[in-house]
Amino acid sequence: MNILDTINSSADVKKIPEDQLPQLCSELRNMIIENVSRTGGHLASNLGAVELTVALHRVYDSSKDRIVFDVGHQCYAHKIITGRRDQLKTLRQFNGLSGFPKPYESDDDAFIAGHASDSVAIALGMAKARTIQGDDYDVVAVIGDGALTGGLAYEGLENAGVSGEPMVIVLNDNAMSISGNVGAMERVLSKARVRPEYLEFKRNYRATIGRLPRLYNFNHEIKESIKRRVLPSTMFDDFGLYYLGPIDGHDIRQVETALQWAKQMRVPVLLHVLTTKGKGYPFAEQHPEKYHGVGPFDIEAGITDSDAQSYSSIAGDTLCEIAQKNSKVVAITAAMSDGTGLDTFSKKFPSRFFDVGIAEGCAVSMAAGMAKQGLIPVFCVYSSFFQRSYDMLLHDIALQHLHVVFCVDRCGLVGSDGETHHGLFDVSYLRTVPGITILCPADFQELKDMIRTAVDHIDGPVAIRYPRGSEPKDVEPFEKEDQFEKNPSVTLVSYGNMFWEVLKAKKQLKENGIAADIIRLKAIEPLDVSRIEESARKTGRLIVAEETCSSGCVGEAIVAKLGQSDTVSCSYRLINLGDGIVTHGSVSQLMDLCKIDSSSIVSAAEELIRTHG
Amino acid sequence: MNILDTINSSADVKKIPEDQLPQLCSELRNMIIENVSRTGGHLASNLGAVELTVALHRVYDSSKDRIVFDVGHQCYAHKIITGRRDQLKTLRQFNGLSGFPKPYESDDDAFIAGHASDSVAIALGMAKARTIQGDDYDVVAVIGDGALTGGLAYEGLENAGVSGEPMVIVLNDNAMSISGNVGAMERVLSKARVRPEYLEFKRNYRATIGRLPRLYNFNHEIKESIKRRVLPSTMFDDFGLYYLGPIDGHDIRQVETALQWAKQMRVPVLLHVLTTKGKGYPFAEQHPEKYHGVGPFDIEAGITDSDAQSYSSIAGDTLCEIAQKNSKVVAITAAMSDGTGLDTFSKKFPSRFFDVGIAEGCAVSMAAGMAKQGLIPVFCVYSSFFQRSYDMLLHDIALQHLHVVFCVDRCGLVGSDGETHHGLFDVSYLRTVPGITILCPADFQELKDMIRTAVDHIDGPVAIRYPRGSEPKDVEPFEKEDQFEKNPSVTLVSYGNMFWEVLKAKKQLKENGIAADIIRLKAIEPLDVSRIEESARKTGRLIVAEETCSSGCVGEAIVAKLGQSDTVSCSYRLINLGDGIVTHGSVSQLMDLCKIDSSSIVSAAEELIRTHG
Repeated sequence: MNILDTINSSADVKKIPEDQLPQLCSELRNMIIENVSRTGGHLASNLGAVELTVALHRVYDSSKDRIVFDVGHQCYAHKIITGRRDQLKTLRQFNGLSGFPKPYESDDDAFIAGHASDSVAIALGMAKARTIQGDDYDVVAVIGDGALTGGLAYEGLENAGVSGEPMVIVLNDNAMSISGNVGAMERVLSKARVRPEYLEFKRNYRATIGRLPRLYNFNHEIKESIKRRVLPSTMFDDFGLYYLGPIDGHDIRQVETALQWAKQMRVPVLLHVLTTKGKGYPFAEQHPEKYHGVGPFDIEAGITDSDAQSYSSIAGDTLCEIAQKNSKVVAITAAMSDGTGLDTFSKKFPSRFFDVGIAEGCAVSMAAGMAKQGLIPVFCVYSSFFQRSYDMLLHDIALQHLHVVFCVDRCGLVGSDGETHHGLFDVSYLRTVPGITILCPADFQELKDMIRTAVDHIDGPVAIRYPRGSEPKDVEPFEKEDQFEKNPSVTLVSYGNMFWEVLKAKKQLKENGIAADIIRLKAIEPLDVSRIEESARKTGRLIVAEETCSSGCVGEAIVAKLGQSDTVSCSYRLINLGDGIVTHGSVSQLMDLCKIDSSSIVSAAEELIRTHG
Repeated sequence: MNILDTINSSADVKKIPEDQLPQLCSELRNMIIENVSRTGGHLASNLGAVELTVALHRVYDSSKDRIVFDVGHQCYAHKIITGRRDQLKTLRQFNGLSGFPKPYESDDDAFIAGHASDSVAIALGMAKARTIQGDDYDVVAVIGDGALTGGLAYEGLENAGVSGEPMVIVLNDNAMSISGNVGAMERVLSKARVRPEYLEFKRNYRATIGRLPRLYNFNHEIKESIKRRVLPSTMFDDFGLYYLGPIDGHDIRQVETALQWAKQMRVPVLLHVLTTKGKGYPFAEQHPEKYHGVGPFDIEAGITDSDAQSYSSIAGDTLCEIAQKNSKVVAITAAMSDGTGLDTFSKKFPSRFFDVGIAEGCAVSMAAGMAKQGLIPVFCVYSSFFQRSYDMLLHDIALQHLHVVFCVDRCGLVGSDGETHHGLFDVSYLRTVPGITILCPADFQELKDMIRTAVDHIDGPVAIRYPRGSEPKDVEPFEKEDQFEKNPSVTLVSYGNMFWEVLKAKKQLKENGIAADIIRLKAIEPLDVSRIEESARKTGRLIVAEETCSSGCVGEAIVAKLGQSDTVSCSYRLINLGDGIVTHGSVSQLMDLCKIDSSSIVSAAEELIRTHG
């Protein structure tokens, strides 16, 4: 029989007899592996959190208690348990289940997640709200050791510690963020992991529990005394958190009991749980970084290595070539050496490669210090996570016009990771950085050229923004340039990846008997509108097509510049992603949904010609 | 005789005989007090760092070694020592010395400063650059305990700890950030402060030092052993930093010796120095928060309390009134309860007031958790520091359209604090936050009304942005509204504080025989251009005057909206602060310099009429 079929809530999980819990976990694991092998998704992190998730649902009621997942790439078991089992097959697909917690999907999802390190502060806010309003529910944050490398997590821990608010912070410690853990936190945690007391913890713990009639009758003094004897004292104690652990995160009884204990304490508790990423799927246990975010794969064979190039791998390879010749070039990542294509660089130039952890602010400030003293740092970072660096870009980089190169990866729509991961704001926030140059390659070769130009020939901060994945296939090189017609009716402006949609639109318009000029901006900052002006003067109709949010988009800047010119009289249509909140799905589905695809550009052009004849 | 007259560099400081050092410190202190009493500036923090600064210059050479000050409000003694003694009288004035480190002033200023918590990451970047390039200099970060509450500092400490890079982090611990320290870091540090060993430290230390022939002959094992006996082990050890201290930061010999020791170690060292804010000026020692940033004052009498109202005090008072009636309203500050006017709130509603430390990211994520569970959090924050919260605004607030109110203080030009403190980017970055409402009061009464509206009648995130200081005096209330003329020649659009410049410009234009419509935007997001459109249709000439950077300004949005309308044909001039880097000086001097004052608006209007007749 299938236990999972009977489970639709925390209450159902609590009904399962203890001896059937391993089977439940096994069913969850199989469902996750089978499903992710078809849909793609986050595998290793979800497999590592199965027992922890079941234990959480045995101790808490997620329909009422607030379980705040950090990053959220460990929520599949939680989704299966809370009534979304049958929808799992739609995971990360358009109109399907999100791969991250979403309150709009279910009240059992306490908060959205996607970016790292915010869960403790959010949970603290919820616990405060609970207490101030006199409500009765519990609050738990579930945070990985990787996310602890982010300063926001410390800010949350500091404040949670002094708050005295009853809340539990579960530290899900798998000794690995996306690409292997770094930094001092790893040192703090590994000290805790290797203490000999840990080996005895389980025995002592059970013996103690066994002696006492009911868990919540524990006398605080006794607990304190037990704790001091069997548990390592750590930084968390200094922060005013009640530290418990480390315990075996795959021993479901142990986790459940420790959670019960933590819950009863009515103080801020940090429960340190050790888990194995990829647990239960040997391929993933052996190579958890490879099985972090995956596409569809064959369960028996595992993921087959692909030699497919991506903008990320091109960036990484190009930086290796540059670094070979220029000893001043160093590379920085914020826990994304694999995702940003820097793995090879990290091996070739270990002393010139820096993984700062999930600490995008630190990456930029450190780069500023390096640049001030003569190095040429290149920080490779995802557009969405780069939002964390905004102040440091303005304050530490721009005020001194320091020469730092930012390889901004995953710009525009990223597809199935959805709203928390799309890169739809970087155009707007990077444009405000004084003295910045923003380059937008449209294919691999241009990315290579632009990185070289950025390193060697541009002063001050330079951002090179490119999308997730690959360049379009089978496009002739000459088509990349501006195209001016003899009697154009409309001017189509774009940059980066959107150029390819505009190119398709131009062809379609031509078939419909409409001649369109196309202008491709290689740099959006500084913004040269002279070619646009030249064409718009002839057409009187301008469309700016962008894969970004509308506020502060390049279209606004272009219209404002042309509007201050005396010589252009023009009608405009700006095509972009509006407020910048876009769901998950394939990129082409989303482009269609948001009406930024080539056929939407064609429609806009035809409408403009019709109404502004 | 005056020792200071002989000093123009670190080398000069090293020449002073030890027994004259107290006199040197005394002269520095007097010069700082006398000068700040005339020019205004940061007093308490600078007085606390006099001995530390002298000791730094005795051990390091600031023309070559890199001393990175965190926040930078402790750099006056450093400036006096490094050749800027005679310019001190121009402190914080237009064309005068900046109150913060500025490499453009002197090579002895290693890096700019203004925002908190970045110094460790910057110094680490510099130390890495030094090592990679094989250069020979030392790197020191000087960071206060307040700045340690910021997550960016932890990110820096984590990475410094594991780096092994020779560098010294001086923790200048005065047990107070701007408005009293908060959080767990305070707990960590006070544990260090009260250890009985500390009382013995001085004696042991001297005894040990005395026994050894030369400091740098210290055997590392001996030092380690001494350290373990006399020094408190702390979180910093866990981070892989070599912790030294705490020592008396006003005992110049002790500080100098400890710095020498730290410098010789060739590992990352954290030297914990205890200082007293305001040291040597009794008024400031007693009320350091009051003597943090001050205007001119009488040295004998001290600062006389002022009842003058400011936008900040109005915001604080209004929140008290609202909170009295609405128990769901809570207030949050990031270490600025005094500056943001929340002092009274903190006393009246201690359980609903939260000072998270210098942790603007945490403030927003915590507010998000609170709002999700039914509270109405109000975060009062300076525009410039709010930049740290950008990602949290997008990710934690906007994606769920949570109702959090942001009282954004110090928007626009702030005057003498200069480029690191002006609030010139919030218009652009806040506009990109999906679903946000941005309100811009033009006087105190409107601020009150808007806070009430924001709390009670608006969904989702709401920002209310207002300038530093007071509303203009003697302005008739009716003048606040839009003014449409019968035959207008130009449309003047503004919001917030710039309205008053536009009002002056309108009067001047009228005297010059030009009728101008004026439109004042109470909200810049969502942006309603209907009244602008109505006027522009008549005038054909539009000026948008703003106290913000140009990229992503409201003018761009207005032009883009009108440019997509079929009914308006218009010429534009956008008046704003360009790239957003503006020096220090009085606000009116800076408005004049940047050509955003009323006479510049008049000139722009006349030019527009002349060229677009």
